Amino acid sequence: MKKTLLILLAIPFIAQSQTTTDSAFIKQASDEIFTNGKAYDLLRQLTKQVGGRLAGSPQFAKAITWGKASMQAMGADTVYLQQCMVPHWVRGKGDNVAIVETNKKAVNVSLDALALGDSYGNGKPVVAEVMAVKNFDELEKRKDEVKGKIVFFNYPFNPTYIVPGRAYGESGVYRHSGASRAAKYGAVAVLIRSLTEATDNNPHTGAMKYDSAFTKIPAAALGLQDADKLWELSKASSVKVSITMHGKQMPDTIGYNVIAELRGSQFPDQYITVGGHLDSWDVNEGAHDDGAGVVHTIEVLRALKALNYHPKHTIRFVLFANEEDGLRGGTKYADVAKAKNEIHLFALESDEGGFTPRGFGFSVSDAQYRKVLAWQPLFVPYGGGDFKRGGGGADIGPLAAKLKTPMAGFNPDNQRYFDIHHARSDVFESVNKRELLLGAINMSGLIYLIDQYGL
Amino acid sequence: MKKTLLILLAIPFIAQSQTTTDSAFIKQASDEIFTNGKAYDLLRQLTKQVGGRLAGSPQFAKAITWGKASMQAMGADTVYLQQCMVPHWVRGKGDNVAIVETNKKAVNVSLDALALGDSYGNGKPVVAEVMAVKNFDELEKRKDEVKGKIVFFNYPFNPTYIVPGRAYGESGVYRHSGASRAAKYGAVAVLIRSLTEATDNNPHTGAMKYDSAFTKIPAAALGLQDADKLWELSKASSVKVSITMHGKQMPDTIGYNVIAELRGSQFPDQYITVGGHLDSWDVNEGAHDDGAGVVHTIEVLRALKALNYHPKHTIRFVLFANEEDGLRGGTKYADVAKAKNEIHLFALESDEGGFTPRGFGFSVSDAQYRKVLAWQPLFVPYGGGDFKRGGGGADIGPLAAKLKTPMAGFNPDNQRYFDIHHARSDVFESVNKRELLLGAINMSGLIYLIDQYGL
Repeated sequence: MKKTLLILLAIPFIAQSQTTTDSAFIKQASDEIFTNGKAYDLLRQLTKQVGGRLAGSPQFAKAITWGKASMQAMGADTVYLQQCMVPHWVRGKGDNVAIVETNKKAVNVSLDALALGDSYGNGKPVVAEVMAVKNFDELEKRKDEVKGKIVFFNYPFNPTYIVPGRAYGESGVYRHSGASRAAKYGAVAVLIRSLTEATDNNPHTGAMKYDSAFTKIPAAALGLQDADKLWELSKASSVKVSITMHGKQMPDTIGYNVIAELRGSQFPDQYITVGGHLDSWDVNEGAHDDGAGVVHTIEVLRALKALNYHPKHTIRFVLFANEEDGLRGGTKYADVAKAKNEIHLFALESDEGGFTPRGFGFSVSDAQYRKVLAWQPLFVPYGGGDFKRGGGGADIGPLAAKLKTPMAGFNPDNQRYFDIHHARSDVFESVNKRELLLGAINMSGLIYLIDQYGL
Repeated sequence: MKKTLLILLAIPFIAQSQTTTDSAFIKQASDEIFTNGKAYDLLRQLTKQVGGRLAGSPQFAKAITWGKASMQAMGADTVYLQQCMVPHWVRGKGDNVAIVETNKKAVNVSLDALALGDSYGNGKPVVAEVMAVKNFDELEKRKDEVKGKIVFFNYPFNPTYIVPGRAYGESGVYRHSGASRAAKYGAVAVLIRSLTEATDNNPHTGAMKYDSAFTKIPAAALGLQDADKLWELSKASSVKVSITMHGKQMPDTIGYNVIAELRGSQFPDQYITVGGHLDSWDVNEGAHDDGAGVVHTIEVLRALKALNYHPKHTIRFVLFANEEDGLRGGTKYADVAKAKNEIHLFALESDEGGFTPRGFGFSVSDAQYRKVLAWQPLFVPYGGGDFKRGGGGADIGPLAAKLKTPMAGFNPDNQRYFDIHHARSDVFESVNKRELLLGAINMSGLIYLIDQYGL
């Protein structure tokens, strides 16, 4: 009885003392990262020296070499490449969209457009009348008018959602499936309103997919100012547009996940994964998407080494090969893990940009969520205390699906993300140093706690 | 007894129903502001058509006219000007700082510098050897070396504070008092390291004050890259610098607070104040500081009118005259309120930039804080749920001091603020539309709740 009492009395003390230790560790990580953090310099290298790095491109090959060398320089126990086949789409020599006729009169008004990723173009102008529709409902109602037209989907990004990601989720289907939905009724090309609320006129690209049942027609995104212009014009009179695209799907090629490890001292065969994706779109520097996640990942590795932290479990730092148009890297990683019967405790991804932290979204069991919620106060001082249910990352999704690995996504503030997402404006200059580092601080804290206490 | 029971049973219902109504009102305000908000367009006007607007300048006069017209256009019941005398400092024809000698050899290395606000310069070069010190302690220890030198305070902005405002508070004394602290021992000019962690080389100006006991010597801020350069050089060898400043304090001139009112339906003589300051530094567009606070204030007015909200208390929307180098506007506002025996329920200021919202800081009693804490969940969906004790704003400070008015400050995320604060880079382009609007949404919610339920 005395012993029991002693244990009971000891519990709050242990809990308190653990909290103090944990809080002190996170503060050390914070001081280390804010004082000596390399994430910002690494991001400058990746964006300015490597640049846009679509899977299959020469820049992507350069990024792999850069990623491997960077993680080696940070003192990982081992760094290796995991081969996987990746798609290889090339934009070709530029996208050209112009209004060539309004109200039966010849004009030449250039529109700023970007071919959607994986879309097709034979380099010859497609010239046709525009049929502007708000959404798929309108397309279906007016399907008899579609034949021979260029369908323009002007579906707006809903401004009233507090989290703009919700608007992205809703309008994404026009980018993804708009081409084949229109080709079904005989459209010769499609244009879409970019998935953004940005105040500039940059078009936003991103992956699309053809339904093999229908003709592959050119598909491009317009910036908002040009989308508004085309909408107004085509509501007032007949408008003819010329679209010249050169997009081409090349044979799949070899790519790699870049994987670094800090070997676990107690459970070397149990894995915690933290990562982001190394590929980006071709038209920008992929600074927020997902250069930020890449350098977050490397910074967590750097900070743990700098603090002389010896993890209990093996921590894997993974730069995934091909998120944007195929998810081949994440799929490969999960397939290999499953084939090897690996034990994966947890996976964390940063693929929402390098903005100021808000928190994490967890796809875990009820019991696991109660456990992580107890850690939430440790993150409040660092701006990352918003712990939500649901979330993860595209690249770690296959691990969660195939191995039932609990996962989480790092959630930075979302307000600015879709202004630059997949647009030319996603460049190094749009990333703030302190915000970027603060993300790595929160991620380091979570990885540390998972390693210490499991889930 | 039955009656008591009925009342007790009714309380949760009323509370629940109130919460639902309140939550619905804030959602309406959110939809209205995200859909029809004018804050971003107003900010473009203020920054691009008016520009930098230091108190006493012609641009400041233009800003007053613009502010009055803008609030009239939003449908305020009344808009009027409240006269107050403001300081009138002019920078003159440019600031010039260059390294002219290193290690006894003539050189000419231009440094990017800005005279501190209210500092003095007679337009003639001050050429002297640099004495670089880390802080006041070092200055005091080496006071015998100071005579005839240009003292360079290279006190760093502490990178480890999570809230950079804390580093600003700590290093601000070098900008404010550095000149006279050095003049006391015979220095002929001072340079300071800018109060920032920015990755660029922009110098950051801001108010300083001379101690009348000592000579008024020129004082300027250097950007961080130049500060690092000067520090390295002066540690390696003797360095001579030439400083030419033209700062001049003109006689005080007439300025105005711009005040709009929505008249209270039940308590017209009880006031709720919401405001920001109309003046800015001369070298930038004053976009975050405090163009954001100005347009937040006007947007709250616009949204309440658009929602056809009839306040119980009179709400005053105040664009204060002179925060940056005198606080004359805020002081005048409080003095008039006190002289008229006005009843002021609450004051809210936005003067921390137009970044994504985090919450509010309250300078209120314990009981009042418990009351506002009960509203906190209503702000969580809008990113503004971080309710802290302590805070307010410089301009409403005199009201709190002289009338004991409870006050709060709107707290946006602080990570980017000191990168652009008082620097040329505080321009319209550094403000994000959604983040700006989201600030106005949170402020509208708080003003509504205070008006409905008091404190």
